[in-house]
Amino acid sequence: MSRTICIYQDFLTEAHKTQIREAAGKAGFTPCFFTCDQVEEAKACLRDCEILYTCDPEILRSASASLQWCCSASAGVDVFCKDDGMFQNPACLLTNSNCYGVTIAEHIVMVTLMLLRRMPAYQEVIRNREWGDPLPIRSIQGASFTLLGTGNIGVNTARYLRNMGAAHITGVSRSGKPHPAFDEVFPISRLDDLLPQAHLLVMSLPETAETVHILNRERIALLPPDACVINVGRGTAIDQEALAEALDGGRIAGAALDVVDPEPLPRDHFLWDTKNLVLTPHVSGNLTLDSTCDLNVEMFCRDLENYGAGRPLSRLVDRKRGY
Amino acid sequence: MSRTICIYQDFLTEAHKTQIREAAGKAGFTPCFFTCDQVEEAKACLRDCEILYTCDPEILRSASASLQWCCSASAGVDVFCKDDGMFQNPACLLTNSNCYGVTIAEHIVMVTLMLLRRMPAYQEVIRNREWGDPLPIRSIQGASFTLLGTGNIGVNTARYLRNMGAAHITGVSRSGKPHPAFDEVFPISRLDDLLPQAHLLVMSLPETAETVHILNRERIALLPPDACVINVGRGTAIDQEALAEALDGGRIAGAALDVVDPEPLPRDHFLWDTKNLVLTPHVSGNLTLDSTCDLNVEMFCRDLENYGAGRPLSRLVDRKRGY
Repeated sequence: MSRTICIYQDFLTEAHKTQIREAAGKAGFTPCFFTCDQVEEAKACLRDCEILYTCDPEILRSASASLQWCCSASAGVDVFCKDDGMFQNPACLLTNSNCYGVTIAEHIVMVTLMLLRRMPAYQEVIRNREWGDPLPIRSIQGASFTLLGTGNIGVNTARYLRNMGAAHITGVSRSGKPHPAFDEVFPISRLDDLLPQAHLLVMSLPETAETVHILNRERIALLPPDACVINVGRGTAIDQEALAEALDGGRIAGAALDVVDPEPLPRDHFLWDTKNLVLTPHVSGNLTLDSTCDLNVEMFCRDLENYGAGRPLSRLVDRKRGY
Repeated sequence: MSRTICIYQDFLTEAHKTQIREAAGKAGFTPCFFTCDQVEEAKACLRDCEILYTCDPEILRSASASLQWCCSASAGVDVFCKDDGMFQNPACLLTNSNCYGVTIAEHIVMVTLMLLRRMPAYQEVIRNREWGDPLPIRSIQGASFTLLGTGNIGVNTARYLRNMGAAHITGVSRSGKPHPAFDEVFPISRLDDLLPQAHLLVMSLPETAETVHILNRERIALLPPDACVINVGRGTAIDQEALAEALDGGRIAGAALDVVDPEPLPRDHFLWDTKNLVLTPHVSGNLTLDSTCDLNVEMFCRDLENYGAGRPLSRLVDRKRGY
């Protein structure tokens, strides 16, 4: 019996399918394609299937113990690591996709400029059909940035900001390992020392036990008055109540949240009305940009080749650590 | 009697004034500072004054024939060239300031990303307290740009876009003279040939007889369906009615206007309700960014040194041509 790959994705074009078919054939696999409205068909396929390629953690629960590798098309795999019951095969490999660096870095540059250039205030002026008076603005040129998360997103963002004249870019990561995209990288244990100078704080952290509420009330209080907080990682990283109080009270300058907790945001949530907040519905890195989709498929096919040849997978996740 | 400079500006800090006093002293001048609520005092000063440094064309009308040089703190000097009656001294020199390259290029990057990443649609979703479905987006990476205007703003914008991976940047200028920031520069006479490929059209033109309604109804019809039009020059450059029709009818993808005609926009104007339009109240380049203000003063002081030494001024405007 031939070995099967279950592909449960909505974004694939015919060209992507051809590309996957070729890579699968070379590795000795048959790919079966399902769109996300074909749940039952996908579940049937997963009864005896070796590889799953999807964004949807729920479908993973239907995979039998024959599953050897789950390739997440998302970068954040916290939802695939929620509980051990998700994997029938305890040894099943999990990989994620780091194809989102460019699109999320573009989102970060956009909201950074929107905050520095006072767009929340100007957009209210425009909504009221007024013209208003010019407001003091700030520039990326000459500014200092603190990037919490130095992965693919942090590195791409640092490069864009540097090219627009950012004066100083500090990275913060678990290890504090230096990287040429940053002027310096500190370990996360130094975070409290760094926050009083975090005029522009960009958060692109995975959700793990260590990152939930990493920006808590006490740390928000350490931020300088001109601080702008940007989060593209996971909503749980921030104490949202404390952030909203700081924004509404004018104790910090602004925030841009592409991720919130919970999602979608309930209709009566306080974040809808928070001042100087640029809110987007978790769209900074989804699969709506052609080049991101192409890269996602390319990365899967490359790892499929590795898998077929018995080589290590390139984006392996530590399921206990969650990234 | 000492030679006088009338400085009629609101943005000056004490440090700026010290800097101007020093430069004036060296050149043999006495500077008199007025804020814009001191109209009568400024007018009195202008009765016997050699140099005027201002953003306000109206105050210029009060200058006597003794005025030899008017330094505009704005880049666009159309308002200083409206009629010959503005200058009592027909030979009076006029200079402008090109300190706006960085701040306006940042505005252009911001609104480009807002249009490519569908912010008008997402912001409506958020205003309705909904979450919505992901929309197809586009990227600066790999995109082609057509920059109508290759001055300081166009050059800075081209550099930023290039560093974010733009695939091709075409400049369009009066002369078509090549510039290293652009892949190619065409003369404005070729505009009609270029518009069908103008997926992202950035306009930073001065207002002159040639640029009024340069993007007229016929030319808007030449744009491709995915075209986004960005204007930071002067509102008169675009046939606004034709643009609004194209946007509301979905014949082009989006527009971002920082300048409109007239300003402020009347409360019953159709542009307030135009679809896929990012409207800002002429704020892309005003004197609300510290580094822009510093550069503006620096440029004035440098030219003051030139003037004192009898050397040519560096940003001389042809008053007949208007730029």
